[in-house]
Amino acid sequence: MRRGLAKLLAPRSVAVVGASPKPGSVGGEILRNLQRCGFPGTILPVNPKYDRVDGLPCSSSVADLPSGVDLAVLAINRDLVLAGVEDCARRGIRNLVVITAGFKESSSAGAERERALRDLIEENSLNVVGPNCMGIINSTPSVRLNASFSRWFPQGGGIAFVSQSGSLGETLLECFGDADLGVSLFINLGNRAGLSENDFLAHLESDPTCTAIFLYLESFADPIEFRRYVQRISKDKPVVVLKAGRTEAGAAAVASHTGSLASPDAIVDAFLNQCGALRVTTIQETLTALRAIERGVLPRGNRVAILTNAGGAGIIAADACERMGIAVPALGDAAKQKLAEFLPAEAGLGNPIDMIATAGASDYGRGLAVGLAEADAAIVIFRPPLVLKDAPETVADHIVEAATQVPDKPVLVCTLSEQSTPAVERLRAAKLPVYAMPETAVEALAVLDRARRIRESWQAPEPPRSFDRLRAHEVLRRVLSEGRSGLFFDEGAEVLAAYGIPVCAFRYVETPDEATRAARALGYPIVAKVDSPSLSHRFEHGAVITGITSELELRAAIERLRGVVSRSGLDGARTLLQETRRGRELIYGIERDRAFGPVAMFGLGGTLVEALHDVAFAVAPVSSYQAAATIRSIRSFRLLEAFRGERAVALSSLVDLLTALSQLAVDLPEVSEVDLNPVIANADGAAVVDILVRL
Amino acid sequence: MRRGLAKLLAPRSVAVVGASPKPGSVGGEILRNLQRCGFPGTILPVNPKYDRVDGLPCSSSVADLPSGVDLAVLAINRDLVLAGVEDCARRGIRNLVVITAGFKESSSAGAERERALRDLIEENSLNVVGPNCMGIINSTPSVRLNASFSRWFPQGGGIAFVSQSGSLGETLLECFGDADLGVSLFINLGNRAGLSENDFLAHLESDPTCTAIFLYLESFADPIEFRRYVQRISKDKPVVVLKAGRTEAGAAAVASHTGSLASPDAIVDAFLNQCGALRVTTIQETLTALRAIERGVLPRGNRVAILTNAGGAGIIAADACERMGIAVPALGDAAKQKLAEFLPAEAGLGNPIDMIATAGASDYGRGLAVGLAEADAAIVIFRPPLVLKDAPETVADHIVEAATQVPDKPVLVCTLSEQSTPAVERLRAAKLPVYAMPETAVEALAVLDRARRIRESWQAPEPPRSFDRLRAHEVLRRVLSEGRSGLFFDEGAEVLAAYGIPVCAFRYVETPDEATRAARALGYPIVAKVDSPSLSHRFEHGAVITGITSELELRAAIERLRGVVSRSGLDGARTLLQETRRGRELIYGIERDRAFGPVAMFGLGGTLVEALHDVAFAVAPVSSYQAAATIRSIRSFRLLEAFRGERAVALSSLVDLLTALSQLAVDLPEVSEVDLNPVIANADGAAVVDILVRL
Repeated sequence: MRRGLAKLLAPRSVAVVGASPKPGSVGGEILRNLQRCGFPGTILPVNPKYDRVDGLPCSSSVADLPSGVDLAVLAINRDLVLAGVEDCARRGIRNLVVITAGFKESSSAGAERERALRDLIEENSLNVVGPNCMGIINSTPSVRLNASFSRWFPQGGGIAFVSQSGSLGETLLECFGDADLGVSLFINLGNRAGLSENDFLAHLESDPTCTAIFLYLESFADPIEFRRYVQRISKDKPVVVLKAGRTEAGAAAVASHTGSLASPDAIVDAFLNQCGALRVTTIQETLTALRAIERGVLPRGNRVAILTNAGGAGIIAADACERMGIAVPALGDAAKQKLAEFLPAEAGLGNPIDMIATAGASDYGRGLAVGLAEADAAIVIFRPPLVLKDAPETVADHIVEAATQVPDKPVLVCTLSEQSTPAVERLRAAKLPVYAMPETAVEALAVLDRARRIRESWQAPEPPRSFDRLRAHEVLRRVLSEGRSGLFFDEGAEVLAAYGIPVCAFRYVETPDEATRAARALGYPIVAKVDSPSLSHRFEHGAVITGITSELELRAAIERLRGVVSRSGLDGARTLLQETRRGRELIYGIERDRAFGPVAMFGLGGTLVEALHDVAFAVAPVSSYQAAATIRSIRSFRLLEAFRGERAVALSSLVDLLTALSQLAVDLPEVSEVDLNPVIANADGAAVVDILVRL
Repeated sequence: MRRGLAKLLAPRSVAVVGASPKPGSVGGEILRNLQRCGFPGTILPVNPKYDRVDGLPCSSSVADLPSGVDLAVLAINRDLVLAGVEDCARRGIRNLVVITAGFKESSSAGAERERALRDLIEENSLNVVGPNCMGIINSTPSVRLNASFSRWFPQGGGIAFVSQSGSLGETLLECFGDADLGVSLFINLGNRAGLSENDFLAHLESDPTCTAIFLYLESFADPIEFRRYVQRISKDKPVVVLKAGRTEAGAAAVASHTGSLASPDAIVDAFLNQCGALRVTTIQETLTALRAIERGVLPRGNRVAILTNAGGAGIIAADACERMGIAVPALGDAAKQKLAEFLPAEAGLGNPIDMIATAGASDYGRGLAVGLAEADAAIVIFRPPLVLKDAPETVADHIVEAATQVPDKPVLVCTLSEQSTPAVERLRAAKLPVYAMPETAVEALAVLDRARRIRESWQAPEPPRSFDRLRAHEVLRRVLSEGRSGLFFDEGAEVLAAYGIPVCAFRYVETPDEATRAARALGYPIVAKVDSPSLSHRFEHGAVITGITSELELRAAIERLRGVVSRSGLDGARTLLQETRRGRELIYGIERDRAFGPVAMFGLGGTLVEALHDVAFAVAPVSSYQAAATIRSIRSFRLLEAFRGERAVALSSLVDLLTALSQLAVDLPEVSEVDLNPVIANADGAAVVDILVRL
């Protein structure tokens, strides 16, 4: 359905359907925005009520428009929108922006109207932005298009901004203006009946004028597509995402053990990480991040040199570095020596380099050169003191000059003031990001460092591992044909085996004699458990007995389990013996998120999992690289490393299990939930001890 | 030494020693600051070079000043400071601000000069601010004193600001001005040769015009005094602290198990919590916090109603609430009913209440009334949309009116813009805190909620528990007399017993026969360990054997321990048997921080403690209330609650152990380190299993 978006985003003629001379009317404001921004193409008002609007000849209908109109903006009564869109299609206008509200966001009649609109879009292969949107802006000098009712027209630059929200989009445009940010494209998606963020990502991927992308999203139109695009784009252009609103998965989650641990926002986090997107959380952080990213210089490591003429601010910056994972390394002796050549005896030659209040322009220039040679980036704190021998502008010039000498290392400036002085103007003109507060400059550097790590860890998408999907599917078909939603242990084990996931050795037993024979084959100590598809938490029902070391104990255990079965009236329950496996307890799981589909979970098992909520998520499918990152991201990861005499757990087997399980979830949509708890891992590998599968 | 500070802070006559007509001279700037700010008292320049300075008659020396001068500000050459201070003392001037730098911050000669200054202060009972400071400001309308070289004169209000740093202090004064904050007192402490933050806390405690205190500190002049004051003051006035810089304790910490876990900043956090201070971390957070606190209304709970005319911003606010522990409760049916009476059908009647872009002044007024009735506080998001039927000022008036109707609940406004419009002016005039970003408004509410919890949990200081200090001291005296720094287990146990801390039953044994008799008395399973004051980590040296269930195993164990002793050449090592105690493993410790003195540590024991770093600190002495809060603050606290069939650990015994151990550390300064690892706790109580005490 999607076609090239070039004409939509850089049209040479724009029709404004619903244009009006009335002040405050939306169609009129859009028309005047087009005129005000200096749109160089043809502007064509359409309104049956007028012959001319704002000095332009006005067509009475879309049908009356000349041919070859690139874009139509519809700001008309909601009851006229469908007819208007049809008229446009008939007139050969393929690119539309539907401003009008009153669709699925408002009522069931609106939802019906939106379905009809979607059909029209589909049938006529239209590029439609909206409905219920603010419009689109392209401030590239050669285009200068404000096809929106935004009061703010950005100043142009390499950043493209795609926003699901209109009002917040306009808020951000104002903030971008205040922050002097180089934004040239603004798209307010509205209801996404036609084009979604993914269509614009596809366009921006190959748009050479776009150097970074910022998205404000409340939901994903299609997470799978989104991931495919962002994974590719993030190799070259930072993709910053402000994702607001929590998924509804939490509320809908089945009340299983795994489900109870799922925090939907943790899934969004995991997903954006997997995409290679840079997630920001607040509007302030958005501005901080974009200002840093705009210059396009990423550090090559996380070490910063801090220069200051105000001791306290340097300390606050160093504190913030420690909090945000930025290293503030001590300076080498040679560097100290160089600083001592020009700084007074009272200066602090550590890092932060405290040049004290007397520091002048050349001190800043020389100090920055020394600092940049010692680190991957520099934060320069400069607040003109009462008595400064040089003009602040001269200091700014020296900072710019020293930064320009080392173009591959970020230099961020902190002025300790919200004032925009001539010195600040010069720094900004040189594209050095300027922040009022030291902690904000550090936050910006932390964003650059995250962008660096995303780029460094970029991986080409992995081909999916291949498994015996048919064998697993056959098991599930059988279970479903028996009208069950739960699986017996051996059925679960077979499904896992089809995906190469190892399960602890086990045997079913019926009589005590059978049990003793099986135990001898498996080897003591042994575990006995009741197996029934209706039993979800075996341990809590006393349906598991561990540490059986003799035949005597085994017989007693079998007897006790019989009692459990008869008391709980479990249908068709069987008794299972299992070898005792030694190692560290893990938990793996699969659940289905409404937005993201299958999500894999990994964490520490045993009582810890409940107490510490120390689990990590990854949206399926999970690549080996992502699986390793997911496993390493849990707080207690070091419990899996070599530890007080125990050897490290075989990490590759943990990774394989996570990738296989995630592929299982993708391949077998019948499976609604998997809970492998515990999985026991040691230096030799990992094996599943208990299995819960629900269809 | 300290006398009343009334004349220092509200003098009727001020001498400026070193006043000069030269522009840019510090003494001259101070003189002109005094004139510019409208100081109503007498200003007396002192300088031998001039007869008049800036229109004022100038004394040639301090001795020539008239009698009864309340305050002298010294801005003279560092070599003249000591004589100047002596002159002042002789002339009967008891209150001084020493601006001059070049003291302990600069060189060893400077340090010497500072010691001499301290002596002078002591001998003459002077109130001295500085040296090396920016000065003091009191903008109370009846005082109007700017005895500083700050370019910024705050606008007056209930907030007192005490800053260790000068340059950062001035930065903050500028920010306070931008933020319209009601600050009236500014003290730059400088080197604190005379007065420290504690002296000003003592003054402010009983100053009725002071409603809140803000301190910027890089270190504490005297943490014990600080704690005493802030604990009292925080009952009535919020004390906000921006503590920058980390303590040096980390570097100095002995490489013991406990020490290796100590994060100095965690100790600062614990200390400020114990004081009842509200710690902020960044300059931005400081501004946010003070703006919220200024109005003086604390919520009675953590539930907020969010009103908005922009959906996206409401979602961002709700997200931020979840992140910061603020509840956004669903509205009751009656409330929804009331909202439906005046809001359009498209409005969202949840929480956030999305009144959509058409919301006018009366909608805001009525909506806020409904929201406040349902929650403890409200955040009102109001950004005038393109088409607004009412003037933004009218909307502001309605918000103010509704907020005024419910004076005991905080109302915070978010404008989604940095612009200061007439509407913003009206909101600020009504003392409603106004923020640009929704996340900042939420951060402010989170600060108010912390302030509420501090006030609600306020406790009168507890009398110290009384213990058998002499008995413990006697043990330590004996150990020291033997030239040892480490204690045997029985010595440690006796010290602990003197403080009522229970230790697991144990017996020393020499021969295998003795061992079997002792084991029978203690009861199997039994633990055997080597006891030597030189052994710090028994487990890692194989010097502990657990789970001994029979005489046979016991004899083998004793044999093995002998091997350990002979291999490691431990002098005077003994063998110890101990009962096996079942329960959850904890770790308690004491270390000495250079700044705070004895600090108690609590955490989970066993391998977990190393892997998870899940420990909490408290500065000794620790009250029962603080001990309980410390214990509850570990992430894995729920492992100590009733859990999968196990009963909850007896919390009171954990609390008693922490208070007793902290008192031990206060009483026995010889003890440099205690490490109780593990302590085993169950539903019946807690007992120490292993003891390390170092002197």
